[in-house]
Amino acid sequence: MTVTREDRWTADPGELLRVGPGFRLADVDADTTPGYDGRKKHGRADLRAGTDELADLQERLYAQSRQDPAAPSVLLVLQAMDSAGKGGIVRHVIGATDPQGIQLKAFKKPTPEELGHDFLWRVEKEVPEAGYIGVFDRSHYEDVLIGAVRELAPPAEIERRYGAINDFERRLTESGTRVVKVMLHISSEEQKARLMERLDRPDKHWKYNPGDVDERQLWPRYMEAFQTVFDRTSTERAPWYVVPANAKWYARLAVQALLLGVLEDIDPQWPTATYDVAAEKRRLAAT
Amino acid sequence: MTVTREDRWTADPGELLRVGPGFRLADVDADTTPGYDGRKKHGRADLRAGTDELADLQERLYAQSRQDPAAPSVLLVLQAMDSAGKGGIVRHVIGATDPQGIQLKAFKKPTPEELGHDFLWRVEKEVPEAGYIGVFDRSHYEDVLIGAVRELAPPAEIERRYGAINDFERRLTESGTRVVKVMLHISSEEQKARLMERLDRPDKHWKYNPGDVDERQLWPRYMEAFQTVFDRTSTERAPWYVVPANAKWYARLAVQALLLGVLEDIDPQWPTATYDVAAEKRRLAAT
Repeated sequence: MTVTREDRWTADPGELLRVGPGFRLADVDADTTPGYDGRKKHGRADLRAGTDELADLQERLYAQSRQDPAAPSVLLVLQAMDSAGKGGIVRHVIGATDPQGIQLKAFKKPTPEELGHDFLWRVEKEVPEAGYIGVFDRSHYEDVLIGAVRELAPPAEIERRYGAINDFERRLTESGTRVVKVMLHISSEEQKARLMERLDRPDKHWKYNPGDVDERQLWPRYMEAFQTVFDRTSTERAPWYVVPANAKWYARLAVQALLLGVLEDIDPQWPTATYDVAAEKRRLAAT
Repeated sequence: MTVTREDRWTADPGELLRVGPGFRLADVDADTTPGYDGRKKHGRADLRAGTDELADLQERLYAQSRQDPAAPSVLLVLQAMDSAGKGGIVRHVIGATDPQGIQLKAFKKPTPEELGHDFLWRVEKEVPEAGYIGVFDRSHYEDVLIGAVRELAPPAEIERRYGAINDFERRLTESGTRVVKVMLHISSEEQKARLMERLDRPDKHWKYNPGDVDERQLWPRYMEAFQTVFDRTSTERAPWYVVPANAKWYARLAVQALLLGVLEDIDPQWPTATYDVAAEKRRLAAT
């Protein structure tokens, strides 16, 4: 990412948070704010400041695709333990862009029809069109996370899926979609506090499900499953980023920075007119 | 609408802008700001102030539906002549809400597959799920607007469609969807200025299409087609609202007020917990 306006990023989050060889999830401290030399108030101000830039780049991305059906798109994949803040990313980072350029899909528990197909069937239908920013709130990675932890499929099938995912994502990137995969990483203690808050506040009761505690009790196994996902599917073309997320403001700022980095790298340009501008001005003036 | 916070609305826009018996589109002055006693700066401030209320009501609407699959939804239908500001409504009114609660659909020129079905086939697939605010940027009304003006279907077929639309919308409302239909009304002179601006600015060239001038030359026929639409399809349950839109700030504020009015009328409530809150607190505390 080009560091602009503010110099509070001391390192490129696209490098710093990227899952490379030897990455260990267990070594990530969810309380930290890597690469950012500022506190909450700065982070919130910088998030607002980044909004206009994101909106501008998004409009260019969309405009470019109106003339070129092979123009790029972006796919942001969000995965996390419950209450880690996926919804906040969608609301505060994605929500600050133009909804006309967003394709948001929240993947729920698969339906019987979906289960009657390969796990990528329902995902394929939701990949973003040229010019759009697609956002997956949960994704095909559920099938190798809860899928592995809850043994919803035999080990050989889970194993097969890593390869299928890499093939799928390679095809996506080769056909012009930039894939950005983000795990929001909170600590187990932070999750406990957030779930307790949901139980404490009647206006949050609807967000709580007794199953949340059941999943929580499998925390170490989920962390192992995430580690395996990173080992097997963080590729050059479709890398994973692990974003410490105990500080919500940091997680939002970091995901915005990752998106800005990808969009600046695409550097979408306003398309030039395919009609005669002067002639059209005369036609219009005559009406 | 309950007039809150600001008293600049001197009349309920839900009454004032509603298309009732005897309504004449030709009598509406697109330059006016009916019912609002303020200028641009006030309108923009009030729009911002309404954002939090809209977001709160939207979250309640969504929360309610998580326990009740028959909970209400809202459908906002946007129709207008080109450049009237549909995109701005989506960006500035809808864009200020949580994207997770929005189902936005921009209807384009029908595909061959869509033309092989009844005109409502593609529309049915996009109606909002319980708890969502659906937004149609163009809609089934294209089939009785451009459909009539460009004679894309014989008169008897156009005639049939008014009845089919009323049946369809009655079914929607009876199954819990509140339907709000908005025409953004600009003057022909205002459109000319806006199209000319697109031709003057290279970063807007992609938004201009030579066909826009062709449609513009049929302005009086489009106004007649809109009048017929109002006469035939502004019903008690699914009314039309004509919003003067030469002042963009007013159109945005008015559409926000219409949505707030409908949501306040639904008055969605936080659902009560279906689990034992105290027991869950103990379970969670023990983890």
